[in-house]
Amino acid sequence: MMNKLLENERIDDLHRNHYKIIQNTKKFCFGMDAVLLSGFARVKEGETALDLGTGTGIIPILLEAKTKGKHFSALEIQEESAFMAKRSVELNNLQDKIDIIIGDIKEASKIFGAASFDVITTNPPYMTDNHGLVNPNKEKAIARHELLCSLEDVIRESSKILKTNGRFYMVHRPFRLAEIIVIMEKYKLEPKHMCFVHPYINKEPNMVLIEAMKGAKPRVTIDAPLIVYKEPGVYTDEIYDIYGY
Amino acid sequence: MMNKLLENERIDDLHRNHYKIIQNTKKFCFGMDAVLLSGFARVKEGETALDLGTGTGIIPILLEAKTKGKHFSALEIQEESAFMAKRSVELNNLQDKIDIIIGDIKEASKIFGAASFDVITTNPPYMTDNHGLVNPNKEKAIARHELLCSLEDVIRESSKILKTNGRFYMVHRPFRLAEIIVIMEKYKLEPKHMCFVHPYINKEPNMVLIEAMKGAKPRVTIDAPLIVYKEPGVYTDEIYDIYGY
Repeated sequence: MMNKLLENERIDDLHRNHYKIIQNTKKFCFGMDAVLLSGFARVKEGETALDLGTGTGIIPILLEAKTKGKHFSALEIQEESAFMAKRSVELNNLQDKIDIIIGDIKEASKIFGAASFDVITTNPPYMTDNHGLVNPNKEKAIARHELLCSLEDVIRESSKILKTNGRFYMVHRPFRLAEIIVIMEKYKLEPKHMCFVHPYINKEPNMVLIEAMKGAKPRVTIDAPLIVYKEPGVYTDEIYDIYGY
Repeated sequence: MMNKLLENERIDDLHRNHYKIIQNTKKFCFGMDAVLLSGFARVKEGETALDLGTGTGIIPILLEAKTKGKHFSALEIQEESAFMAKRSVELNNLQDKIDIIIGDIKEASKIFGAASFDVITTNPPYMTDNHGLVNPNKEKAIARHELLCSLEDVIRESSKILKTNGRFYMVHRPFRLAEIIVIMEKYKLEPKHMCFVHPYINKEPNMVLIEAMKGAKPRVTIDAPLIVYKEPGVYTDEIYDIYGY
């Protein structure tokens, strides 16, 4: 099975531990968002981590390479995508370290149990039903718009699944920051650390990386701006570092 | 009275409309925070604006110079500071445009009445009782620590005083951002626009400028980072612009 690619699939190198990943150029590809999140998230030695809505499985595969975490689980509702992620896990011989589970984020605390993980990561859909055009490609639409789960579903389930003082890492769009913080507070996930990602130094941020801690006191640290491009087509050193080039 | 300076007072040029301001080098001086807030706040033609905790009166004086606002009010609890601000208003012949009122922010909605202003600005104390050393100088301590009013007092009173769709502008410390947003939401002040101010491009922000609108829907725009220093002792062009040099 390992080497059998389906239509429109290709294998890409991840520049970490010689790991590779399968992507489907028409349906399931990871973005810079997921790579930046896996550079931002901290998984300490011996900790367990869960990725909600894992898509290609990029986040658990990169976190397994970059951290000393004990075990990585990943939930994905789209069967075709989950099957592809499983094949990427096998391609890297990571079956003992990474589990890909098919299931619904709205049911995640029932699937995994309360207070069962040290770390949760998520690169959820950014857009509500009302934001912009919904992609006519169903697989992409589910990944981008809150068709199958809302921001509140993701945060509520994450809060239940995390242990006390467990850490939640999310990448999202800055225009939803106020909503994000209000919903986090509702579910006792206290924002502790944020990083705004700007395409250029003189441009508005188009991503925000957030770390929250379950049950912590309010006090948030905001990083220096993370700038993506030095000039058109040329990444900054920080981005090359995160990508591992 | 206009030209009589008290002990430790001096007159500084504001580089706007030839306006000047009286400062007391031992007790009441404005910071870059207030100048940046008056560059960030928008007061449209014919609008009325109120500054809560005005100190030297720097914000209404700069806003009178920079905007086409109809009238500016400013509240200050420390009598000595309010008296100094009044003398600065007279020094610039702005008695018809700016009122300095002595009073308590906690009572502001009783003093000014509900839904009575288009715009509120505030550069409140940043620190709670628990944050760091309280300045032994009482006047400075009141300006820096929440001794006489809390963040929630400022936001609650502002929400009452603003008209529907009125705008609230505040400068604060980024480490309190999550608290700020949660309290704003509680009082229906929706964050619409933020700017993080970084001392250097590669440093964490030490100020955040926030615009909120009473009763608006959630959607916030975050600016490109505002950088203060190009190199030690040399402001960036953006900062020179705001200062009017």
